[in-house]
Amino acid sequence: MRRVASSALWPRLRALQIYGANTGVGKTIFSSVLCAAFQKKLRRVQYVKPVSTGPLDEADDSHISAFGSGIKSKTLYQFDEPVSPHIAARGSSLPISDNEISVALYDELKSYATGEDGIAIVETAGGVLSPAPSGSTQADLYRPLRMPTFLVGDHRLGGIGSTISAWESLHIRGYDVQSVGLFAEGRYENAAYLKDYFAERNIPSFSIAPPPEPAAARDEDIKAMKAYYESSSVNAEVIGFVESFLKAHDKRIEDLREMPKQATEAIWHPFMQHSERNEGNVVAMESAYGDYFQTYTKQKDVPSGAGQEEKALLSPAFDASASWWTQGLGHGNPQLALTAAHAAGKYGHVMFAGAVHEPALTLSQTLVHRMGNARLSKVFYTDNGSTGMEVAVKMALRAASKRHGWSPEDNVEILGLIGSYHGDTMGTMDCSEPSIFNKKVEWYQGRGHWLDFPQVKLRDGQWVVEPPKSMRKTVGKTRTFNSLAEIFDLDARRADWGRYRSYLDAELWHLRQQGHKFGALIMEPVILGAGGMMFADPLFQRCLVEAVRGIDPNIDNAKAVDGQGADKDWQGMPVIFDEVFTGLYRLGRFDAAGFIGADPDIVVNAKLLTGGLLPLCTTTASEAIFEAFLSADKSDALLHGHSYTAHAIGCSVANESLATMSKLSQSDDWAGFRQDWKASLAVQETKDVGKGSTPWSMWSQSFVETVSRKPNVDYVFAIGSVFAMSLKDPAGSGYASTAATGLRDRLFAGSRAGEPVIHSRVLGNVLYLMGAMTSTPETLKGVEETVLEALSR
Amino acid sequence: MRRVASSALWPRLRALQIYGANTGVGKTIFSSVLCAAFQKKLRRVQYVKPVSTGPLDEADDSHISAFGSGIKSKTLYQFDEPVSPHIAARGSSLPISDNEISVALYDELKSYATGEDGIAIVETAGGVLSPAPSGSTQADLYRPLRMPTFLVGDHRLGGIGSTISAWESLHIRGYDVQSVGLFAEGRYENAAYLKDYFAERNIPSFSIAPPPEPAAARDEDIKAMKAYYESSSVNAEVIGFVESFLKAHDKRIEDLREMPKQATEAIWHPFMQHSERNEGNVVAMESAYGDYFQTYTKQKDVPSGAGQEEKALLSPAFDASASWWTQGLGHGNPQLALTAAHAAGKYGHVMFAGAVHEPALTLSQTLVHRMGNARLSKVFYTDNGSTGMEVAVKMALRAASKRHGWSPEDNVEILGLIGSYHGDTMGTMDCSEPSIFNKKVEWYQGRGHWLDFPQVKLRDGQWVVEPPKSMRKTVGKTRTFNSLAEIFDLDARRADWGRYRSYLDAELWHLRQQGHKFGALIMEPVILGAGGMMFADPLFQRCLVEAVRGIDPNIDNAKAVDGQGADKDWQGMPVIFDEVFTGLYRLGRFDAAGFIGADPDIVVNAKLLTGGLLPLCTTTASEAIFEAFLSADKSDALLHGHSYTAHAIGCSVANESLATMSKLSQSDDWAGFRQDWKASLAVQETKDVGKGSTPWSMWSQSFVETVSRKPNVDYVFAIGSVFAMSLKDPAGSGYASTAATGLRDRLFAGSRAGEPVIHSRVLGNVLYLMGAMTSTPETLKGVEETVLEALSR
Repeated sequence: MRRVASSALWPRLRALQIYGANTGVGKTIFSSVLCAAFQKKLRRVQYVKPVSTGPLDEADDSHISAFGSGIKSKTLYQFDEPVSPHIAARGSSLPISDNEISVALYDELKSYATGEDGIAIVETAGGVLSPAPSGSTQADLYRPLRMPTFLVGDHRLGGIGSTISAWESLHIRGYDVQSVGLFAEGRYENAAYLKDYFAERNIPSFSIAPPPEPAAARDEDIKAMKAYYESSSVNAEVIGFVESFLKAHDKRIEDLREMPKQATEAIWHPFMQHSERNEGNVVAMESAYGDYFQTYTKQKDVPSGAGQEEKALLSPAFDASASWWTQGLGHGNPQLALTAAHAAGKYGHVMFAGAVHEPALTLSQTLVHRMGNARLSKVFYTDNGSTGMEVAVKMALRAASKRHGWSPEDNVEILGLIGSYHGDTMGTMDCSEPSIFNKKVEWYQGRGHWLDFPQVKLRDGQWVVEPPKSMRKTVGKTRTFNSLAEIFDLDARRADWGRYRSYLDAELWHLRQQGHKFGALIMEPVILGAGGMMFADPLFQRCLVEAVRGIDPNIDNAKAVDGQGADKDWQGMPVIFDEVFTGLYRLGRFDAAGFIGADPDIVVNAKLLTGGLLPLCTTTASEAIFEAFLSADKSDALLHGHSYTAHAIGCSVANESLATMSKLSQSDDWAGFRQDWKASLAVQETKDVGKGSTPWSMWSQSFVETVSRKPNVDYVFAIGSVFAMSLKDPAGSGYASTAATGLRDRLFAGSRAGEPVIHSRVLGNVLYLMGAMTSTPETLKGVEETVLEALSR
Repeated sequence: MRRVASSALWPRLRALQIYGANTGVGKTIFSSVLCAAFQKKLRRVQYVKPVSTGPLDEADDSHISAFGSGIKSKTLYQFDEPVSPHIAARGSSLPISDNEISVALYDELKSYATGEDGIAIVETAGGVLSPAPSGSTQADLYRPLRMPTFLVGDHRLGGIGSTISAWESLHIRGYDVQSVGLFAEGRYENAAYLKDYFAERNIPSFSIAPPPEPAAARDEDIKAMKAYYESSSVNAEVIGFVESFLKAHDKRIEDLREMPKQATEAIWHPFMQHSERNEGNVVAMESAYGDYFQTYTKQKDVPSGAGQEEKALLSPAFDASASWWTQGLGHGNPQLALTAAHAAGKYGHVMFAGAVHEPALTLSQTLVHRMGNARLSKVFYTDNGSTGMEVAVKMALRAASKRHGWSPEDNVEILGLIGSYHGDTMGTMDCSEPSIFNKKVEWYQGRGHWLDFPQVKLRDGQWVVEPPKSMRKTVGKTRTFNSLAEIFDLDARRADWGRYRSYLDAELWHLRQQGHKFGALIMEPVILGAGGMMFADPLFQRCLVEAVRGIDPNIDNAKAVDGQGADKDWQGMPVIFDEVFTGLYRLGRFDAAGFIGADPDIVVNAKLLTGGLLPLCTTTASEAIFEAFLSADKSDALLHGHSYTAHAIGCSVANESLATMSKLSQSDDWAGFRQDWKASLAVQETKDVGKGSTPWSMWSQSFVETVSRKPNVDYVFAIGSVFAMSLKDPAGSGYASTAATGLRDRLFAGSRAGEPVIHSRVLGNVLYLMGAMTSTPETLKGVEETVLEALSR
């Protein structure tokens, strides 16, 4: 795995990071005071300055060395020019990337974890958001380590405001500020104000006397400073902080160690058989950043032997389920955090009945316009995919019933695909055929008919489309393709088109003969997710839409179902696309519908909608569907609406996320992925809207092909950020299979705490991996290598 | 209504607020430059310094007057001592509350809205978070006006970080920063860095030359400064800002005016018959703060006549539905915004399957322990009340079916109350009897039996408990009480107790004879909300719980149903309390169950759970219910879980909100309300957990009684933050009634834009008012006066 800095947490080595509210507030003085004070309690006190600018003999570590007897000090990166690190770094050959520096700091800290009681005091440069060598900020540079933080407040005029603002900047980046200290200053009373302010936020603060004015003679100066440090280090408030910090460190570890057990006592977990739950298999998520969780598990928390290097308590774990398919822009993303806070500060939640606010309006307009589907016109808001699908079903059933004059007694059903899954509320459960998920739910009653479908698989290095047995008589046997792109070149697959339509037209005719009344076709385009990660042949899904719409199979296919310039009304039955998982760049393009070249009448989006931050769902419908609810009677309206409908935070974060992902889709960040997958293609395709763009993946072709040839692997596939592998299970596949759990456990075990591992989820015999939209090729390559290694074990 | 500062927005009078990244960065210089530059474009330029400290002749407005010819300047509050306003205010008799100052500033701005093209430049004091006279911060003091903001960046060493932090502090308080300007300084390159940084965030920034060094002679000095202002005001970047600001102002107004129409084009509103929707009746929520929305409506946006005072575009509107019953801690609450951002920065969303994080664990423990219900043990998370109720129903039905050996074919039902409503998903809809909300939903099928119940009403100044006609034969006629507290003194109502139990025991016997199999009793304790705001007799609800549990009516009632020390297993059928609306202080205490002295087996909380910021729901269950899902088979588990289950932001905000509301409940803030309602009571009761606390309301007894005597009012009630009045409707009551809409419209109309109005919601013939838990007596008194006045019109 790629090296990545972990949260810095060892039992006996403490780490404390010193931030300044501004330049010149006395970070180095405070560091020295704290070093001296901790020295009275702990055997080893280590001072680290990761990045220093200016001449070596004026550097902060020289100050520490000069005044701290027995304190070890170290500077990791020294830039000679006495300017901000981002300017100094320009002319330097030193490594400057945030990752390099944070990993180097982590390694440095780790080297102190010798089992002795000690502390490493890490002094940052400038203020909280002063630039790092890379040009990012101090607080962002060190965020992966998320060290406990001491903020040196500003004692000068204006320092109240700048101290609080600096604290807020740390706070919104997920830091826990342990204490605030500043120099006492009589006139402005900063310390008195800040003491109250931070006490209300449960953060203790204190002030100490400022250092003596520089004396004329250097000897005098040194003597005065030594006396100053001597007295400051025994200052009651300083000692109070030292003691409370040491206690807080122990408490933090104790809480972490207790967390799995306490979770088993107070929490009812989703999708878990709790007879198997124990404190050993609950993962404590200490925090998360970028692609990684910081995880604590009982298994890895084994005491180090005497004289042995101390083991870290936390391990970074690649979030390979993208936190249940939601994660798009990385954990702890400061831009999303700020966007959420801005909306909270501007609106809070404002009720949405008969009202509108800018974030909801902007999001509605973006969705309607960017989907590239001329049918779509109105956006309805709910809180999650399941409720959004409930709304979609209510919409479709009403439209169909109204047109056909059906009443509730007519037993209106939906038409879907076998293995589909649309959510956990009972109404959406009824949209799936009986399965392990729903069959024991007392009120479940499948209300529909579900068709089987041909699947796309890469098996032994060969892309195939494999029809189920039941269809083979009509549509023929498994067909092979040279590439994934060839499968998506729908227009070129004329023969399949005809076979699929023959099959589907006949099926629909039979179903209607049997008396079925269908109020909707419901599909997850391209990939059926929760039902088991199945890759449907996009041409079959396209043909199904055409078939239910009764489109003449002989007309120009390219224009048959997209509604462009044609009738925007629904035909046959309303078509609902559940893009909760597949939409909004998860598969590499804005909408998944475009892959199959069919325009739904209703589309549901969630998960990635907010970039992976918080719940929000949209159900976007055509004008024709909307009009089915119009009348002079209020009771004909869609009487649905959750309290937090279109909450401003969710809509604002969604707008920011969609804008960011849209930029990514146009950027070089994804160009390499596209290039890898288009090697065999003549047409370069970069647009992410419109019909029929070429599929590509963030997972490399070579990785995907290599895995497909492994002996215990049945087949694999990859598209966009999704990779899935189906493992051979002699006992049979499906949700109850345990074929993939061994691999999952190996990926998560790692060899020891502190090392990056992979936290993945399985669906029966399928193990899948999912990147965030911001995952780098370097990170994903590391994941691929680890997976290949685990498959060979 | 109480005076409250509105968002400052007029068509021709612009307002621009100048914040400094720190003290001493040149706010007054920039203000002067901008005044001079705007003077070239607009007829009237007004400079305002709301709060100034230090001698008058050194004040900033003197500087403006000295150098700006034709610029009017004004200081509103002058403190002589040259220290921070919060220190200077101590010895002063000037008004210092945030509300007084912000209202005075609003009035001052309003006085400039003469119809001329002009701008008011408002200079704040110190840095963004420097203290205000009251001790709050500058940014919090002026937040109600939410003026467009110009941030003067810090050009000095360390200024990059302090400028960005200052911007973040403004941003999380909901300000829109239009531009950043700072002095050019060669060595630190702050301007270059900040230009890129803010450009990425779509905020233009620029730098200008710093002012000349002070000359020895005062004449020289003045001459040099005049020349400086002369040249700066024609600086191309300054002019660029002026032009872009004027455009942005027009664009902001244009967007606001378009917003209602655009909403009708792109949005499908909840609970609305859209045939009645038009751009005239959609309310644009420009922002919100504290108890108030800032609203724009087409109706009030009528052009001012020539020479007339210009009309404000926005009106503050009291959020009398508490934003669909969610709002608890005020809109734009900076503490909640920061808490949300901290969780986003520390975690983002981390998947919850088999995992735990601190905010979710803490919230689970808080709920289990604070509910004062020894049965409760495990917390399950979903996203809204409806999904939380789906989970509750799944839990109860499984537990009951398992014990009784029922299969899905057994047609298991729920027992409930007539007029109950538990959410919009189809599974929860099935828990209510047919009504306007569900009867046209194609898949709806009521699965239960619903009992009518006696209601609590204040009619013509008299508290009564009124049984429905169907019950009168058994339980007698309407009974009168001296106070609301008397109704809640359950132990003293022995006669009613016996009558209710006789009635209920007979009903249940009949139902079982008819073959009903009940998997749950579902109730909203005390108030049935969405079904029409009905106040159930708490004693009847208590008796119903006892009856379904088969508790002998002759045993000690106080201990009969609370599970304390007794069997924690469910009896008869699992009891679900839907406290989505009524719980968590909405009715004045932590749990609503305590009012009726009955411990449910399952309780659902949402709405106020996050203080009114974003969606989150908890379903808390007893250990016995939890155990019903344990087996060796995964398919027996509760296979439910939304993607954002237990999202860290929601849980963190919930923890902060519950802690804040808990503090409020112990504070003097609520003591006055309690006192008002307990005048006639011997026992002082302040605890908010445990059984049987005395009811009280944030609405005054005298208001409630006065309204109850109005001729067009049938009855009213109040408890906690809720007040409801049922208006007489000769055409009949219920959701379809329009009796209350006239009053609602009068409350919202106000006489003109800019004045505080009331934004309320009705449920048929019921109009209700709801305060936030932070609404002050002063604010509520204003609302009461407005309502009384509207009722008399």
